[in-house]
Amino acid sequence: MTFTLHSRLEADTHFAADWPLCRVLVMNDARYPWLVLVPRRDGAMEVTQLEPADRATLMDEVTRAGYCLQALPEVAKLNIGALGNKVPQLHVHVVGRRQGDPAWPEPVWGHSPAIPYEADPLARMIGLVRAG
Amino acid sequence: MTFTLHSRLEADTHFAADWPLCRVLVMNDARYPWLVLVPRRDGAMEVTQLEPADRATLMDEVTRAGYCLQALPEVAKLNIGALGNKVPQLHVHVVGRRQGDPAWPEPVWGHSPAIPYEADPLARMIGLVRAG
Repeated sequence: MTFTLHSRLEADTHFAADWPLCRVLVMNDARYPWLVLVPRRDGAMEVTQLEPADRATLMDEVTRAGYCLQALPEVAKLNIGALGNKVPQLHVHVVGRRQGDPAWPEPVWGHSPAIPYEADPLARMIGLVRAG
Repeated sequence: MTFTLHSRLEADTHFAADWPLCRVLVMNDARYPWLVLVPRRDGAMEVTQLEPADRATLMDEVTRAGYCLQALPEVAKLNIGALGNKVPQLHVHVVGRRQGDPAWPEPVWGHSPAIPYEADPLARMIGLVRAG
């Protein structure tokens, strides 16, 4: 099974882990604890295109990502979204939100510009995924 | 099991159906084919709080809602989101998008003002859910 990450996702994120279905990425935006889950199924663009077993696994992995983020003291709310209006490859955003974060209470998407991670906070995020 | 729909969801939507887990609502915004799925589980605010069986059903019902919308010729893309920054009751948006819709390619959330439905297009949306 081949899998190629879309160039835009490649450019905007850091690799954290490969879970059974999804590649787990950390969005390179230090303003929010923000994971992106990409099912390793070439050509998938919509949740409705996945096989039922893959959909169930996707839900499990979205939940697992949610637990990772909820372990952070600054995360009060999860925002989960599968949009794909700009990047067609199926990917699910799982974002930790809090009152007073830069986009609150609006969604984070399109709320630019991102603030790239420094090494230490990035390592913390990647460690969180790898332990989760 | 009691279930009370949040007053904001009540005000912004029309009832379409009760599926096994979710109340299915049509967002009262004629600009987009837009369904809102509310698990009938009082107190649930996050996907991570649902029992695993409910999470699986939620994914099935999100997919079912997606199929309903994809049956519409004007729907080219699904946007799926569970946010809840303003309305804490767990609810999942399933929105049919197309190039050139009023918010494209940005998310629909916060892109006001809504345009309320006329009776005929609303009946079409409700019929779509009930047949789906």
